[in-house]
Order: sequence, then C-alpha cells, then structure tokens
Amino acid sequence: MSSPTDQSFETPRFPALMVELPAWVESHLAHADTTYDTVEDRMRLAVELSRLNVEHGTGGPFGAAIFDTQTGKLVAPGVNIVVDSRWSGGHAEMVAFAIAQQAVGTHDLGAPEFAHHELVTSTEPCSMCLGATPWSGVKRLVCAATHDDATSVGFDEGPKPADWVGELEARGISVVQQVLRDDALRVLQAYASRGGYIYNGRAGN
Amino acid sequence: MSSPTDQSFETPRFPALMVELPAWVESHLAHADTTYDTVEDRMRLAVELSRLNVEHGTGGPFGAAIFDTQTGKLVAPGVNIVVDSRWSGGHAEMVAFAIAQQAVGTHDLGAPEFAHHELVTSTEPCSMCLGATPWSGVKRLVCAATHDDATSVGFDEGPKPADWVGELEARGISVVQQVLRDDALRVLQAYASRGGYIYNGRAGN
Repeated sequence: MSSPTDQSFETPRFPALMVELPAWVESHLAHADTTYDTVEDRMRLAVELSRLNVEHGTGGPFGAAIFDTQTGKLVAPGVNIVVDSRWSGGHAEMVAFAIAQQAVGTHDLGAPEFAHHELVTSTEPCSMCLGATPWSGVKRLVCAATHDDATSVGFDEGPKPADWVGELEARGISVVQQVLRDDALRVLQAYASRGGYIYNGRAGN
Repeated sequence: MSSPTDQSFETPRFPALMVELPAWVESHLAHADTTYDTVEDRMRLAVELSRLNVEHGTGGPFGAAIFDTQTGKLVAPGVNIVVDSRWSGGHAEMVAFAIAQQAVGTHDLGAPEFAHHELVTSTEPCSMCLGATPWSGVKRLVCAATHDDATSVGFDEGPKPADWVGELEARGISVVQQVLRDDALRVLQAYASRGGYIYNGRAGN
C-alpha cells in the first residue's frame, strides 16, 4: 500500500510512545528478592530513585514505587522521564503506575484477585498524579516532601482540590504524609540549587 | 549476564508500556491533508472517535484530538485505551497528548517555536486529564459533554477543584465548553444503555 516516497514509511503519522525506565533502574534493582518491610524502607527506595535520577541525568528529582502492601515486594519503580521521553505525563508516579500495570497484567491494581497495592512517592502528587491515583487501583498513598516543599523550589503542583487528602480517603485510599520528608526535600533543594531544569508548562515553558 | 533459566529473558521485571492508537484510527484518518477549520469541525472528529472506539470494541466512549489552533491541522487523535493497553492512564486526552508530543518531538506543545496547540475532547476532562493539561503545553481546551453528563451515566470525574476552568485560565489556557454537547452525550448514553463497562477504580473495580 505504501510507495517508496511515502513518508509514513519512515515515521508514522501518529507515532507511539514507549513508557520505559532508564536503563540504570533495572540494574540498580537487580535483587528481585528484596522486600521492603516498613514505610520508611519503601520511602528510602523512592527517595534514592529521585536522587539517582538526577545523578544519572535521566530526569527531574522525583522517584516513586508501587509495592504490594502486605508482602513488601516491589512491583514497579518510577522516575521522572518527562524530557527524555518527550512526554509531559512522564512523572515518577505515572511511570510507576504504568510499569506496575504492565507487570501485573491489568489496568486495575485494586482488582479483587490481588493483594493491596500502594504508591510511595518522594513528593506529594501534582494534580495529574493525584487524579491518576484513584484510577490506578492503589489503596494507599505514602508521601515524603510536601506540596509546599515542591513549590518552595519552583515546581507548580497544578490545580488540586484544597482537601485532596479527604478526596482520596473518600475513594477508599488512605494517605500517609511526611515519611522521610527531610531526605526528599534535600534532593529537591540540591537539584534547584544546581540550576536543574524546572518544567511547569504553564506558560509554555 | 543472563542464564538460560533467567526469567527476565522472557519477561523483563519492569516491562515497558507502549502507548499506541488502535489500528483503525490511523486508517480512518488516512487523509493527512484534511484541515479542521472551526471548533465544531474539530469537535465532530473527537465525537466521531468516541463513537468509533465503542463500535470497534477498542475502549470506552471517549475521543480527543490535538490540533494546531491556527492552521486547523490534526496533530494527534486520542481514544480511551484503558482496558486493552492495561493502563489506567489511557484516557483519550492522555493518549492524544502522548502521541502529539511524539509527533512534534518534545514534551512541550507550547514551546515558543510552535504554533499554538489545543486539546479538543468529547467529554470534559477528569481530574487526571485536567491536571495533565497545563503540563502538556496546550493553550486552549475545547469540550463537548459536561462533567455532569459523564457522572449521569456512571463515570466518576475524580477529585477536581471546584473552579477548574478558572484554574486553567489562570495558567494561560482558555476553555470552551459545550461544543456539540448533545452529540457527545448521545454516545455516552448509548454506551451506558448497552451495558458498556464503566471503570472508575475507586473501590478497586
């Protein structure tokens, strides 16, 4: 159907997006048997991912992970991949949801046949990631740095409802805040003080 | 590094997600020269995509598209792909953003070197897609069916701020509501009355 000069042969008109982790993540987490027993253990990983993402130059200072709440098993990590993936949706939480759902094999991490899943994130979710949380099926959200911490270094958290914690709890999702907050905040501050690229998009850049 | 029994050889521990349109979309939109001059022309396409997505059995009754506001050129279509892609983030608007950003080659559809881009969607955005809108770089949002239309057939729009239109406008994004609303609502109602799967995720299913 295509002629040799058909441009779509080289680049499809509507090209797909591959949502994938930077290569260092899989090798950094080579020990598949590791379990993360406490919320602090789980958050330590999310914050470490945020720090390593900056160190490797693969994205912004944000890390997240989906865990099986009961066994402490890591289901999927996530880091900010916005710039490298050319996708404004590539926040750490969105990446963790996407990879976890591929790993588990369904869009619903809260399906009855699964143990409960939780999202652990180095910074409280922006409006997009907040909105994505109920659809993901996770039953708990654990956060480190706060909304105010993120805005203090220049990130816009977007149009969130004032009582976002209450909104999630009304949908059956419990929220735990400020776990290892200082550790996460230090990563944000180090990024900002080194002049890291802060993308908000509000005014187009 | 891998032994023949290494499970990761078959399935990576953290598998990637491919965000791609159902095959019928690209063939349906084979005429790349078509332009869409008015907001009604653009919305007619978004609503048609919502209807065809149900007809083809490829997802929920939602369609969207990114246009170059000035030329009326279609940059990327989007349809709901949640169930087939195993990704709760696969709403029509999120898919349109992702594909448009791949087509244009940057995460920022509002970068200074581009003409203005706009999102046209068959139903007002849920909390996730609302939150994603400022990060995408679009400068205008055009909607058909309303928040109340979506909830009237059983869809939860999620934790949105009360004045979500004002929140977008404060970020430099103009909002046009109820363009071809009745056409879009008819698609939602037909889907619901035929017992279409309504996924909200709130309670895990």
